[in-house]
Amino acid sequence: MPAVLENSVATEVPGPLSKAASKRLDAFFDARAIHFVVDYDKSSGNYIVDVDGNRYLDVYSQIASIPVGYNNATLIEAAKSPEMISALVNRPAVGNFPSSRWPDLLTDGLLRVAPKGLDKIFTAQSGSEANELAYKASMMLYRRRERGEGAEWTDEEVASCISNTKPGSPDLAILSFTDSFHGRGFGSLSTTRSKAVHKLDIPSFDWPHAPFPKLRYPLEKYAEENKAEEQRCLLEVENLIKSWHFPVVAVIVEPIQSEGGDNHASPEFFQGLRDLTKKHNIVMIVDEVQTGFGATGKFWGHEHWNLTSPPDIVTFSKKAQTAGYFFGDRMLVPDKAYRQFNTWIGDPARVIMSKAVIGEILEKDLVSQCARVGKVLYAEFEKLASKYPTLVMNLRGKGQGTYLAFDTVDAGALVKAMKARGVNVGTCGVQTVRFRPMLIFEEAHIPTLIEPLDQVLSSLQ
Amino acid sequence: MPAVLENSVATEVPGPLSKAASKRLDAFFDARAIHFVVDYDKSSGNYIVDVDGNRYLDVYSQIASIPVGYNNATLIEAAKSPEMISALVNRPAVGNFPSSRWPDLLTDGLLRVAPKGLDKIFTAQSGSEANELAYKASMMLYRRRERGEGAEWTDEEVASCISNTKPGSPDLAILSFTDSFHGRGFGSLSTTRSKAVHKLDIPSFDWPHAPFPKLRYPLEKYAEENKAEEQRCLLEVENLIKSWHFPVVAVIVEPIQSEGGDNHASPEFFQGLRDLTKKHNIVMIVDEVQTGFGATGKFWGHEHWNLTSPPDIVTFSKKAQTAGYFFGDRMLVPDKAYRQFNTWIGDPARVIMSKAVIGEILEKDLVSQCARVGKVLYAEFEKLASKYPTLVMNLRGKGQGTYLAFDTVDAGALVKAMKARGVNVGTCGVQTVRFRPMLIFEEAHIPTLIEPLDQVLSSLQ
Repeated sequence: MPAVLENSVATEVPGPLSKAASKRLDAFFDARAIHFVVDYDKSSGNYIVDVDGNRYLDVYSQIASIPVGYNNATLIEAAKSPEMISALVNRPAVGNFPSSRWPDLLTDGLLRVAPKGLDKIFTAQSGSEANELAYKASMMLYRRRERGEGAEWTDEEVASCISNTKPGSPDLAILSFTDSFHGRGFGSLSTTRSKAVHKLDIPSFDWPHAPFPKLRYPLEKYAEENKAEEQRCLLEVENLIKSWHFPVVAVIVEPIQSEGGDNHASPEFFQGLRDLTKKHNIVMIVDEVQTGFGATGKFWGHEHWNLTSPPDIVTFSKKAQTAGYFFGDRMLVPDKAYRQFNTWIGDPARVIMSKAVIGEILEKDLVSQCARVGKVLYAEFEKLASKYPTLVMNLRGKGQGTYLAFDTVDAGALVKAMKARGVNVGTCGVQTVRFRPMLIFEEAHIPTLIEPLDQVLSSLQ
Repeated sequence: MPAVLENSVATEVPGPLSKAASKRLDAFFDARAIHFVVDYDKSSGNYIVDVDGNRYLDVYSQIASIPVGYNNATLIEAAKSPEMISALVNRPAVGNFPSSRWPDLLTDGLLRVAPKGLDKIFTAQSGSEANELAYKASMMLYRRRERGEGAEWTDEEVASCISNTKPGSPDLAILSFTDSFHGRGFGSLSTTRSKAVHKLDIPSFDWPHAPFPKLRYPLEKYAEENKAEEQRCLLEVENLIKSWHFPVVAVIVEPIQSEGGDNHASPEFFQGLRDLTKKHNIVMIVDEVQTGFGATGKFWGHEHWNLTSPPDIVTFSKKAQTAGYFFGDRMLVPDKAYRQFNTWIGDPARVIMSKAVIGEILEKDLVSQCARVGKVLYAEFEKLASKYPTLVMNLRGKGQGTYLAFDTVDAGALVKAMKARGVNVGTCGVQTVRFRPMLIFEEAHIPTLIEPLDQVLSSLQ
């Protein structure tokens, strides 16, 4: 039986204790983005409890990163295991001195869920890092092919790269899409195109971005128009690959653009992208940092596409509780050791948590559950869209599990009002309300979300 | 009493079981850089034990990242604490929903060792990430001053940054030094200048690098010459700041260049750098990823300099077991929330380990111990330098705790021979043997290092 608790908010949000803790924190740690301060010991399952004792149904889930609920029993067991104690206390430089447990940890954990066709892994610590590692792998592959298999590095290459000049530091581009979010490092941020707050004042690489399809809803009504829009975008992708003033070595795309506003495209669009990357022999990177690990009703978002050949690289983070990338082609392993390397290469402690998350997802068949619950939830949102057509617009995510969103007039006001009614929900893009329940969200929790939402929409009319 | 164990190596290194595990691993995880596979359960204190049962005195310490020994009892206690279980199981988006424990965790941990004058912190997951966050903070500060306090972003800035073009994505540079290592992200790698294997084929920003002093040893003998060399380098720093074709907003420097070959400079050099950064109103970032946390005989490497004003930013990782940066000036907090931000903003689980490490270092006064033991160890190396003048050259690190190094003819051969005798030691630069004992390395362990080294040097003569 799912644990269904009462939402209960007795103070303003944030409450006085949250405010006091934030104020104290702000003296030494930027606290301006704090929603509220959390009592994680009192939080459980789908419910988060703040220090003022308010309990919220959490359908934001730490920016879509909590997979199987607060204080999950299986995760607690993993956290207490001797394997975990050792990983925490004896943090290894995984590339040089891996633990005897490392091979089994990978095969019993992350590799169980490796996307079809991708049987190799590189571990990392964040989605941003995972994407940059994927970019570097793509760049080294491109130059390896260009140089010729087995060719040695020239003295000029070796010397010039130290000065950040050509030919050692070449101009090579990663193509991304308008409104994408791929992270905040200098490389990943150069591919992020969502918001100025992420990018302003930070130097970027001169890399191209193609339009991401802007679909009209409901999809059935605008099928022709949407198809044309996707074709237009694909054409532009190919134009950019062919005409950019230096080589484009990879394309990176999210199955659903998340931070950018929950923007979707059809399987045909992604198949078209796969065809283009194959045609031009460049790497297709699928950024599953937010879509991976089940919330779309498939373990990986890209499984919805039925591609004719798998993507070259799939990156992950968030619900995995660790990060990294999967790949299939051994040519993506650089020609020499130590080129793709760093001190820690991820964190085995977090990889252990990932193994526990994966065990929980597979054993409890949470991906199927997400698909099933998502259908019911979508139907409920449809009713609200009919009831409040000016406040619930462009409902999207049908058939994508619980990964649902709609546009509204004032997303900030809606989310604030929902918090006051005990539902923690997030926004994205400019005017989008996004739902990111955990994988343990069930039919029984739907009323706790829909009833307050109905009230809030009614009050905002 | 320090635990002194016998080194014992009964197989070739790596042994057959290490080789078998590496081979298995290599099918799905790049195993080419593995030295040996480790049985961390059998490792303890200063000793690492591989899966073949070989026990080594470890003076490489996971690339200088193990602070207080394998299976340290205080760390085990922290790893088993309810606070840790919660941090592992309920991983928060620290910027939005911090735990009620977060303020105390910082004040009782990392902030206890904040460098003098720096009372604020931003947490991260790697040294590379910490440095990039510092670069971004410096860039935002520069533009904030240029724009004028309180000035709003222009529409042109907002629109252009999304396309990676000016004025939103400006040309702003970070100045680093020849042979520096600051990480492998696209921004941090643009400041790394050590080796082609780190940089080749990866696009870089057009940023300047100044020569780092090349001191001659013994320092006393070449005092005049070294002083002139440092002046030359400082002049070049100022030339680059003044003449670079776009603004230099920060200088980043390591107290001891580590990956680049254990290169030192005098306190006067660093004071000169502080003066220049003050004069030109740019940020001084001290990269203490490898020097921080006590090994130089001071908690922070830059404490050796007695600067007239503290550095603006100090980054850390490695022995901290987590990462981030300290700073003092509140203007380094960006003008708006969410500009310096990411999903996790570090990992509270690793911050808890950091707190335990700090407790252990302070309670056992391990920094003083390092200073004391380092003197004895240096004297032993001096004897070897006299005995083998062609094999132990440019001995350096006097007065820098156990952070010692020397040049030799074939560093790879020396290190291999040392492994065969049960000492795990590392290299850096081109021909340098570097010593990175843990902070719990004591006088009693010195013979276990020096005797095999004497034998190896004798055999290499």
